[in-house]
Amino acid sequence: MSDSTDRPRLSDLFAPRARQVALPSFGAEIPGPVPLVTSFSFGLADPQFFPRSALAQAAAIAVQDDDALNYGSTHEGLINRVVQIMARRGIPTTPEQVLISYGSGEILALLPQVFVDPGDVVIVEGPTFMGAASRFVAGGARVISIPVDDQGMDVVALDQVLQNLAQQGIRPRFIYTIPTFHNPKGSTLSLERRHHLMRLAVYYGVLIVEDDAYFDLRFSGDPLPPLAALDPEGWVLYVSTFSKIIAPGLRVGWAAGSPEILRRLEMFRAEGSVGRFLGRTIDQFCDQERLERYVQLLCKAYEHKCKTMLQQIRLHFPVEVQVMPPQGGFFLWCQLPSEISATALLQRTRAQGVTFLPGSRCFADGSGDDAMRLAFSYQPPEQIKTGIEVIGAALKEMMA
Amino acid sequence: MSDSTDRPRLSDLFAPRARQVALPSFGAEIPGPVPLVTSFSFGLADPQFFPRSALAQAAAIAVQDDDALNYGSTHEGLINRVVQIMARRGIPTTPEQVLISYGSGEILALLPQVFVDPGDVVIVEGPTFMGAASRFVAGGARVISIPVDDQGMDVVALDQVLQNLAQQGIRPRFIYTIPTFHNPKGSTLSLERRHHLMRLAVYYGVLIVEDDAYFDLRFSGDPLPPLAALDPEGWVLYVSTFSKIIAPGLRVGWAAGSPEILRRLEMFRAEGSVGRFLGRTIDQFCDQERLERYVQLLCKAYEHKCKTMLQQIRLHFPVEVQVMPPQGGFFLWCQLPSEISATALLQRTRAQGVTFLPGSRCFADGSGDDAMRLAFSYQPPEQIKTGIEVIGAALKEMMA
Repeated sequence: MSDSTDRPRLSDLFAPRARQVALPSFGAEIPGPVPLVTSFSFGLADPQFFPRSALAQAAAIAVQDDDALNYGSTHEGLINRVVQIMARRGIPTTPEQVLISYGSGEILALLPQVFVDPGDVVIVEGPTFMGAASRFVAGGARVISIPVDDQGMDVVALDQVLQNLAQQGIRPRFIYTIPTFHNPKGSTLSLERRHHLMRLAVYYGVLIVEDDAYFDLRFSGDPLPPLAALDPEGWVLYVSTFSKIIAPGLRVGWAAGSPEILRRLEMFRAEGSVGRFLGRTIDQFCDQERLERYVQLLCKAYEHKCKTMLQQIRLHFPVEVQVMPPQGGFFLWCQLPSEISATALLQRTRAQGVTFLPGSRCFADGSGDDAMRLAFSYQPPEQIKTGIEVIGAALKEMMA
Repeated sequence: MSDSTDRPRLSDLFAPRARQVALPSFGAEIPGPVPLVTSFSFGLADPQFFPRSALAQAAAIAVQDDDALNYGSTHEGLINRVVQIMARRGIPTTPEQVLISYGSGEILALLPQVFVDPGDVVIVEGPTFMGAASRFVAGGARVISIPVDDQGMDVVALDQVLQNLAQQGIRPRFIYTIPTFHNPKGSTLSLERRHHLMRLAVYYGVLIVEDDAYFDLRFSGDPLPPLAALDPEGWVLYVSTFSKIIAPGLRVGWAAGSPEILRRLEMFRAEGSVGRFLGRTIDQFCDQERLERYVQLLCKAYEHKCKTMLQQIRLHFPVEVQVMPPQGGFFLWCQLPSEISATALLQRTRAQGVTFLPGSRCFADGSGDDAMRLAFSYQPPEQIKTGIEVIGAALKEMMA
């Protein structure tokens, strides 16, 4: 070993799957501390509303429990809270049907381990939350996108795709959908389509992964039953999170569904059960209907922000831009005139300190540059006003 | 689809790797709430010592930060604390060389993803922490065990194994070792052997995974440099945790080493970065040298427990049982007379409400039933006394 080039290298030890470094794709759209701009880019909660003192009190009570600070599986108190939340959402659930996770993202990232072999088909929406879809692709899935309109996923188009696949002998592994306050579209799947979608899942034997992060954040219209509430025989894996209704920095979410699936998701966790301190803290936060009262406050606050953004859009955007008012959630989707590139628009507005998510970041095939997603959740109303004004002016310049 | 047996089943959708449900092996030795027995079985921290009010105060300060409650990558404050801890342990480290994880267990469970293809050789100690070794086996590794004596791993035996493997053209992926206050043996690798081990790693080009959960919990003897402090060129991945020095229920640990490795470990995380609330809380806890002062308190408390257990063993165990006093950590290893089965002993003592870990739970090949691990960390001194008395009486009965 006189010559250093002969010497063994660390990099020889990597398994083939680890040779190339891929950037962690999940959550890649979410940066660290937000830069000093008016950002409509990310589905961030508004820090002004964080229930700081209630969380501090909950943590102070949690640390009094021996078994919240020692090893152990997920805190049973939190599992029972989730059972209650599920019941309020119309989905009867037992503790065995709940898996607490580090955000819903952990569940979505584990799905390919349980369901996908290279080349297996997974159906997503187009547009969709690419933080999830990119993990399916990284896990080897062949992703097929179904259009979304103002009534949610186009289930007739889905039916056609499922039929075509069945004729080829292909059974998709799962359908990933965000039926309520869609990310990024803001639309909500109609009741009729919900029933239709469930019938398709049962008929074709395809799992539905229902991502329902925003269910509680409805500020107009009547609640619709989640798909999991319409599921006669366990074809829905329901995924939700405390990120939007308490605080994302806690990183706690859950899956609910067939224990057959949950046990397999657990098998592939490196991180083990969610720590008991976090679990007991959120359990305590939920005590005395604090979560329900906090969610009511959030709904009012987000409704105000959404209305403010819609008003400003009416004032400042060219009439050619199409926007559909959502009934809840965090997002507005703007369909731009076909000659406008959202990426080019972003370049202009970013120079003036205003950002958003180009539609092309929401499609598995990179299409959609004639649209943009605006998150109204994060910015205070004053910055929503100035930010929309800047985007409106840039749009008018580009269309002039 | 008139006949229900013709209908598609959910279980058809599982990928081959997910068909069989394996029990989650990592941490399987750690139960939920501890039953009403005198348990010497698990490496649990003593709840009496948990720094409850300091943790509550730290959480109360953490929730005041916007960016501790929103999305984002691991809290930079915690990364900087770990850099300081590493420096105190004699290992100069930059923030880029640190990866914060959900306990050190997350890192150990991710290792096979980065380093192991089916059949690849991984070297562990015998006995070892099977929570780690069983994950390597589940990841496809062929595990080879090297004996451990009162000076730590037998590096001469290791040299022989590495030589034999090299002659067969086999280069092990990594050597998993617990050099300081070994789990389960309690022994500490001598300085001479540390240097020898590092020379072997460099010569054969094998990564060393140094699991150093107990470094700070030394109550006698002079500190020895971690292997990572003797590592001239990045062949050590150092793994440690806050579980033993603050509280396990927080589930926060770290890896430190080559960014080449850390980036790859990150690639295979489903859970994403450790949440900013947890990170900021521990960061705040560490402020004003609180961690150092707390660790001093722990060292005194665990020293007292260890001494109590050793005294009771001298009083109540047959002289044929060999025990070596450790200089720190959580564990005593007892070598039983060869005719005694630790599993049979456990059956007797469990009936009287006293448990421990049979040695066979610490060897990859299931050998070691002529030994037992006693954790002195968890029980209060009074229960240590009664528990050891029970085990001693059972031993004498079996040897009578």
